[in-house]
Amino acid sequence: MSLTRPHPRFLARTNRIFSSQVRYYAAPGEGTIPAAKKKYVPTNGTYPLGFKTGSAHVGVKASNTRFDDLALIASDTPCAAAAVFTTNKFQAAPVTVSRAMLKSRKGTGVRAVVINSGCANAVTGKGGIEDAILMGEETDRCFIEDSNGEDDGQGSRSVVMSTGVIGQRLPITKITSKIPKAYYSLGDTHDHWLRTARAICTTDTFPKLLSRSFSLPSSQEEYHIAGITKGAGMIHPNMATLLGVICTDAPVAAGPLQTALTSAISRSFNSISIDGDTSTNDTVALLANGAAGGQPITQPSSPDFAAFQKVLTAFAIDLAKLVVRDGEGATKFVTIRVTNAATYPDAHRVASTIARSPLVKTALYGKDANWGRILCATGYAEGVDSVIPEETSVSFVPTDGSDELKLLVRGEPEQVDEARAAKILEAEDLEINVSLSEKRGYTEEAVFWTCDFSHEYVTINGDYRT
Amino acid sequence: MSLTRPHPRFLARTNRIFSSQVRYYAAPGEGTIPAAKKKYVPTNGTYPLGFKTGSAHVGVKASNTRFDDLALIASDTPCAAAAVFTTNKFQAAPVTVSRAMLKSRKGTGVRAVVINSGCANAVTGKGGIEDAILMGEETDRCFIEDSNGEDDGQGSRSVVMSTGVIGQRLPITKITSKIPKAYYSLGDTHDHWLRTARAICTTDTFPKLLSRSFSLPSSQEEYHIAGITKGAGMIHPNMATLLGVICTDAPVAAGPLQTALTSAISRSFNSISIDGDTSTNDTVALLANGAAGGQPITQPSSPDFAAFQKVLTAFAIDLAKLVVRDGEGATKFVTIRVTNAATYPDAHRVASTIARSPLVKTALYGKDANWGRILCATGYAEGVDSVIPEETSVSFVPTDGSDELKLLVRGEPEQVDEARAAKILEAEDLEINVSLSEKRGYTEEAVFWTCDFSHEYVTINGDYRT
Repeated sequence: MSLTRPHPRFLARTNRIFSSQVRYYAAPGEGTIPAAKKKYVPTNGTYPLGFKTGSAHVGVKASNTRFDDLALIASDTPCAAAAVFTTNKFQAAPVTVSRAMLKSRKGTGVRAVVINSGCANAVTGKGGIEDAILMGEETDRCFIEDSNGEDDGQGSRSVVMSTGVIGQRLPITKITSKIPKAYYSLGDTHDHWLRTARAICTTDTFPKLLSRSFSLPSSQEEYHIAGITKGAGMIHPNMATLLGVICTDAPVAAGPLQTALTSAISRSFNSISIDGDTSTNDTVALLANGAAGGQPITQPSSPDFAAFQKVLTAFAIDLAKLVVRDGEGATKFVTIRVTNAATYPDAHRVASTIARSPLVKTALYGKDANWGRILCATGYAEGVDSVIPEETSVSFVPTDGSDELKLLVRGEPEQVDEARAAKILEAEDLEINVSLSEKRGYTEEAVFWTCDFSHEYVTINGDYRT
Repeated sequence: MSLTRPHPRFLARTNRIFSSQVRYYAAPGEGTIPAAKKKYVPTNGTYPLGFKTGSAHVGVKASNTRFDDLALIASDTPCAAAAVFTTNKFQAAPVTVSRAMLKSRKGTGVRAVVINSGCANAVTGKGGIEDAILMGEETDRCFIEDSNGEDDGQGSRSVVMSTGVIGQRLPITKITSKIPKAYYSLGDTHDHWLRTARAICTTDTFPKLLSRSFSLPSSQEEYHIAGITKGAGMIHPNMATLLGVICTDAPVAAGPLQTALTSAISRSFNSISIDGDTSTNDTVALLANGAAGGQPITQPSSPDFAAFQKVLTAFAIDLAKLVVRDGEGATKFVTIRVTNAATYPDAHRVASTIARSPLVKTALYGKDANWGRILCATGYAEGVDSVIPEETSVSFVPTDGSDELKLLVRGEPEQVDEARAAKILEAEDLEINVSLSEKRGYTEEAVFWTCDFSHEYVTINGDYRT
């Protein structure tokens, strides 16, 4: 075997990279949506009343000469708002500014969310804070105008978000000069929502938009919820991952709105991992304007709140899954279910550790049933008490409804049907099931969603700033 | 820009993969050592008295028809031994068996270390434990014979190690039948040591062997220390990383030997990361036979112990660095120095978090001065109190002796000379310096060594079992 010629399998792999989707990331929304991802982009929707969305082209990245990179989501009337932010100690300027804004006005009277892609305004010092404040003020100005100078004296009414490269200042004058343009483009059609979803993309290959209707026990009204989000790298929990904006026309007061969002995020955006990196900018905001009418939800103890919580959590999970579906370089969508743990944090911690193991993720990419790496990750999960080697079981659950494939049963390896394992790993979707301890009567369970680790991830992230 | 043709930069990158070292990993030691790595393989050495090494071909992996994959390191006389093992909860059978052996004989009377590559004997249930015991017993038998049936009634005298794929049983009969062959090949020349270093390799591209001489305050003797180790993936601290065997002819008793090894490992093998995965098998053993004579070291309080500790730690650091130098797919050798922390664990934790961030590692591979990702990782290091954003500074320290390049100074980004940054990143070696808080008078420092994350890492680990 000569060293100057590549291994045949390596050539085959490389050919696959060339023929699979190639991701251009010079500008958000650039390029065509890969054929395999088109099914995740809705062609219509049912959107919350009293919300409008718009976008404009700024060219935050100089290389972006065509695509909208400024997004605006607005409520027709001042509304309740809640948000969950990154736990990274280096909080980006828009995180600091938006958190202060929501605190100052106790989550009420909010009019808009303004978002730029292409530059994260993170680790930008005092100048960055001033830029984020300017973005909010310029947005406020549009709405002060349309409400005849209305000002309740509680400062900005705008949530500010930024996503893109860290450590560079925003081209703030370019951005603020285009905010009115985004404002004048506001509308409530499906196309408006989709265009706005696209404007917040960075390395995403498709815009992420979901909408649905729901009802509440106490009311005859039909309510709506819609949301946009973006990935596709620097994603791991301990935060509200990434950027997300969710709007509903249900009448939920600020207090219970924050309670519902915090709970929904823990089971959705905080249960996904692309690469184990926790960003400086991650923010998910939830706006509720009550435009569909009905009895306001003011107490977390009400049946309406319970129903809303259920709708919101399920919606946030589906939105978060879209992020995994478009993880940088992802060729697989993997559900990791850890069962029979002593506590939910134990189960969540083990699932999270498996989800971020580079060895597990490269094996999935290589369609290699190397379940020893799953075990290995289970064994080094930190601060977990319910891992007991001789009681641990691991299996693959195929998505075609056929029986699970047992790999390890209570600490003893199974004779694995490698042909069947290979077949299961051919599919894009896979569930990995890790049972920690049936014997001790542990019943806690956590679900995590992740993707594989491919050559393309390396290509994307070796070149991101250029 | 068409989606069917790859990006020019991507083509350039791919060409680089083809032209750089291609790693064949079907069998240990297979293939030629890459030209760039030859300088790390010594052509001679000075080895400890009274130790011999040998190897044999087993074919643990069926595809390995030629290369030695069984290694034996032996002391001419029963000697003191210490070891540090993985902290992974799924401890491989040889870890369990070797730990019990050392405990049972209190680190005394050890004769040999026997190691196979190609299969880790991990997560193999009760059968795996039996296999590891058999490997030790067959090794003991060789030495019982040469010492006329000497048996001190304390059981096995052999440390057992295995490395390779997880979850498969050893071909134990093939292995035990070749142990006598390894025994009869024992010798004390440089070639014996190098051949043994090669027999424990898996995805390593070069054998890792170091030796040196030293003296102790109380004695005129010249002492020697030599060691072998192997990588090259599933490497992250919280354990004794990987496999390593260190031998010395200094007279150190079992108690202080363990103390010295534990301390040396924390600053060496527990301060490196390839991929953040903590293996089930990691073991570093240290044997001391006193063959060079002199006053025995029996107390950690003696000046001889302090001198030996210093020699051992420096030696272990150099050995551990060789592992990073040969990290799977590595094109960079990166030193991460975290200074001005409140505590050593804080500094170590931040350095470790930076070292395992896929985004930092892919940026290094792409020679991209994306220092925002270094900050981001600093900010999500868990359980660290001394990260204060407005006091944090980051710089690149070039290896050519020129001035450091400041990127962030006390929370404010510098105007970075991108041309100089690019030039610094061209070199294989780089030091990243993160200062947490000068102002508060914090002085603790930790150093970590890591490599980048390349396309080749993905290729190697997508295909490992095949």
